[in-house]
Amino acid sequence: MIPFFKEQYGNPSSIHKYGRFTRKAIEKARKQVATLINADPSQILFTSGGTESNNAAIFGIVKTYAHSGIITSSIEHDAILEPCKKLEKEGFDVIYLPVDKNGVIDPMILKKNLSQNTSLVSIMFGNNEVGTIEPIKEIAKICKDHNVIFHTDAVQALGKIPINVKELGVDLLSVSSHKIHGPKGIGALYIRKGISLDPVILGGGQENGLRSGTENVANIVGFGTACEITRLKFLENISKMRNLRDYLSSKIIQEIPKVFINGHPKSRLPNNLHLTFLGVNGEDLLIKLDENGIAASTGSACSVHIQKESHVLRAMGFSHEQITGSLRLTMGVFNTLDEMDTTVNILKNVVKELRSVSPFKEKYSF
Amino acid sequence: MIPFFKEQYGNPSSIHKYGRFTRKAIEKARKQVATLINADPSQILFTSGGTESNNAAIFGIVKTYAHSGIITSSIEHDAILEPCKKLEKEGFDVIYLPVDKNGVIDPMILKKNLSQNTSLVSIMFGNNEVGTIEPIKEIAKICKDHNVIFHTDAVQALGKIPINVKELGVDLLSVSSHKIHGPKGIGALYIRKGISLDPVILGGGQENGLRSGTENVANIVGFGTACEITRLKFLENISKMRNLRDYLSSKIIQEIPKVFINGHPKSRLPNNLHLTFLGVNGEDLLIKLDENGIAASTGSACSVHIQKESHVLRAMGFSHEQITGSLRLTMGVFNTLDEMDTTVNILKNVVKELRSVSPFKEKYSF
Repeated sequence: MIPFFKEQYGNPSSIHKYGRFTRKAIEKARKQVATLINADPSQILFTSGGTESNNAAIFGIVKTYAHSGIITSSIEHDAILEPCKKLEKEGFDVIYLPVDKNGVIDPMILKKNLSQNTSLVSIMFGNNEVGTIEPIKEIAKICKDHNVIFHTDAVQALGKIPINVKELGVDLLSVSSHKIHGPKGIGALYIRKGISLDPVILGGGQENGLRSGTENVANIVGFGTACEITRLKFLENISKMRNLRDYLSSKIIQEIPKVFINGHPKSRLPNNLHLTFLGVNGEDLLIKLDENGIAASTGSACSVHIQKESHVLRAMGFSHEQITGSLRLTMGVFNTLDEMDTTVNILKNVVKELRSVSPFKEKYSF
Repeated sequence: MIPFFKEQYGNPSSIHKYGRFTRKAIEKARKQVATLINADPSQILFTSGGTESNNAAIFGIVKTYAHSGIITSSIEHDAILEPCKKLEKEGFDVIYLPVDKNGVIDPMILKKNLSQNTSLVSIMFGNNEVGTIEPIKEIAKICKDHNVIFHTDAVQALGKIPINVKELGVDLLSVSSHKIHGPKGIGALYIRKGISLDPVILGGGQENGLRSGTENVANIVGFGTACEITRLKFLENISKMRNLRDYLSSKIIQEIPKVFINGHPKSRLPNNLHLTFLGVNGEDLLIKLDENGIAASTGSACSVHIQKESHVLRAMGFSHEQITGSLRLTMGVFNTLDEMDTTVNILKNVVKELRSVSPFKEKYSF
C-alpha cells in the first residue's frame, strides 16, 4: 500500500500516466477480490466497507420496487437491520425470520413467507456474534425458484469458510477487508450480472456509476493483497483457527464449571467461540480480561450501543441472565496454543472471582 | 498511519485497550481537522471522502423536507449535481443558479430565487475546474437572514484559502483529505450545532449515528495529520503555490500566442491555472503533455466521463471551440520554478505542433 500513499498518488480517473498506473492497480485488486469468491472482476464493486456494501445492496435493490416486501432475519448485523427499519418507516413491508436455539434459519420458514410482493431476501452467511453458519445455498435456491433477489452479508464468512458465488447462486454478497487482515475502510459488494442497483453515493460516476468518489487506491490495493493471501493460505488458516478454537473450547469446558457453548455446534465459523458463564456479567468479564491483556467482546464490536442487549441472543431464546453472562472469543491465525492456555487460566481466575461476589452465588451454589 | 495498519488494529468501538487506543487516535484527528477550519471537534463527521460528504449533506438535509426547494449553482461538482438531479426526479424543485463569464455567482440572484419552499442552498467554495472562489460569506449571510440551511463544497478550497466556519457562518461544509496531501478515501463534513442530518449509511451507529461502519482509522489519522501540517504551513504554502502559478501564467502568456486565462482573475484558488488555447484540442494537448511527463487535465479529474463537455465552461458562456481548447494546470507545494519553465517550453512546442495541423489554422493564421 505504501507506494500509493507516496509516489503513486495519481487519481485513477485521470488519463495521464499517474492516473493510468493507479487505475491498473485497482483493476488488479478487483481481480484478486473476485478470484477469492469465484466471481468475475466486473462483478466486484468497491465500497468503503461491509456496512456500506450492505446499505448499497438493500437500498440499491428495493428503491426500484416501491413499497415492496423484504425478508431478512432477526439475527442480522445492524448494517442490515437499520436500513430495513428505515425502509419500514418508508412503507416497505419487512419480515424478520426467527431462528432456532442455535441461531439457524429454517429455509422452509423463509419459503412460507415469500410472496408476490417480495423483492429482496437478505440473510447473513455467518453470524458475527455466535458464529452460526446459515444454509445459504439452500436459501439462494429457494429465492431463485421464486424469482426473488437474494443478498447475503458474508463479512464474517470471508476467509473463514469457502465462498463460491457461482456455486452458491447468490445475487449479491457483501465482504469487508479488515476481517481478513486487510486495511479498514474498504469492502466490496459482489453483484451478479443482470442485477441492477440504484447507487447510494452519486457524483463523478466511478465504479461504473455505482459508487462515486475518488477511489481509495491504497486500501483497495491492500484489500486485494489480503484476498490473495487469504486464498493461498485458505485451508491452512482455517484449520489453524479451528484447532485453536477447539482447543480453547474444550479446555474451558474442562476447567470452568457451568459454562455453555452457544451457536450451532458444528455449522459454525472456525474462529468463533461464544460462551455463557452462568452467574457472571459479561461486561465485568470483559473488563477483567482486558486488565489481563485479553481482548474479548460481548455483543458485536461493530455496535457502539455496547450496553444494548444482544438481539441475536434474544432471537435465539436466551434469558436476560444468559444474555448478560455471555462472551465472545475469536481467534486469528496469528494466535498460538500458548495464548489459548493463558486465556483459560485467566478466565478461570476471573470467573471464580466474579462468581464469588455474584448475586446468583446461592442459586448456583458457587 | 503505519502503526494503525500493523500493531494498532483495534476496532475503535471495542471497549478493550486496543479499541480505546484507536478511539483516542480518531478523536485526536477529529480535533486536527476541526482546528484547521475553526470548528469544534464535535462538529466534524468523518466520511469516505468529499463525494460522500456532499451526498451526506444534500440527502441528509432535504430528506426531512419532502418536495422542498433546493438552490445550487450550474458549476458545482458532479457530487452535488448528481444528488440534485436524483432529487429532482423524486419531486424536489432544484434551481441551478447561473454564473458570469468568470464563473462567479451573484448573491443577489440567489436572494431573488429564495422562497418559503427553499430548504437548502449548496454553493461551492472554490471551483475545481476554473479555480474561481465564490462569495461564500455573503451567500451564507443571505441564507441565514432567510432561515435557509447553507452548505458549501469546500473540497478544492481546503488548504488553498483560509476557511473559518464560524466567521463564514456556513451550516455545512465538505472537505476531502487527498486534496491536502492526505490519504484518499477519507473526508469530513462540518455540521454546525443545531443542524440535524438524516444519515446516508446506517448500521452500528458510529460517528454519533450519522455514519455507520467501522472507522477507517489509519486514513482518519493521516487526514488529521495532513490538516495539522496544512495549518502550520498555511501562509507559506499558499504563497508558494501562488508564486508558481503566477510565474507559469505570465510565462505562458508571454511565450504562447492566442491563449486566454479563464476564471476570475483575482478571486481564485492559488494553485489553479485554467487556459484556453485557440485552435487546439485540449484532449490532444493533454496526451502530448503526458508523453512529456506533465500531468494536466481538461474538465474535472473526478469525473470518469472524460469526453463530456465541461458543464462549468458551458455555464460561463464558452463556445464549443473554447471548451475543447481548454486545459487545467494545477500546482502543489512540492513543485518548483524549474518545473514551471520546463512546462512552458513543452507547452510551447506541443501547442505549435498541434496548431500546425489544426482545422482552425487559417482562421487564426497560425
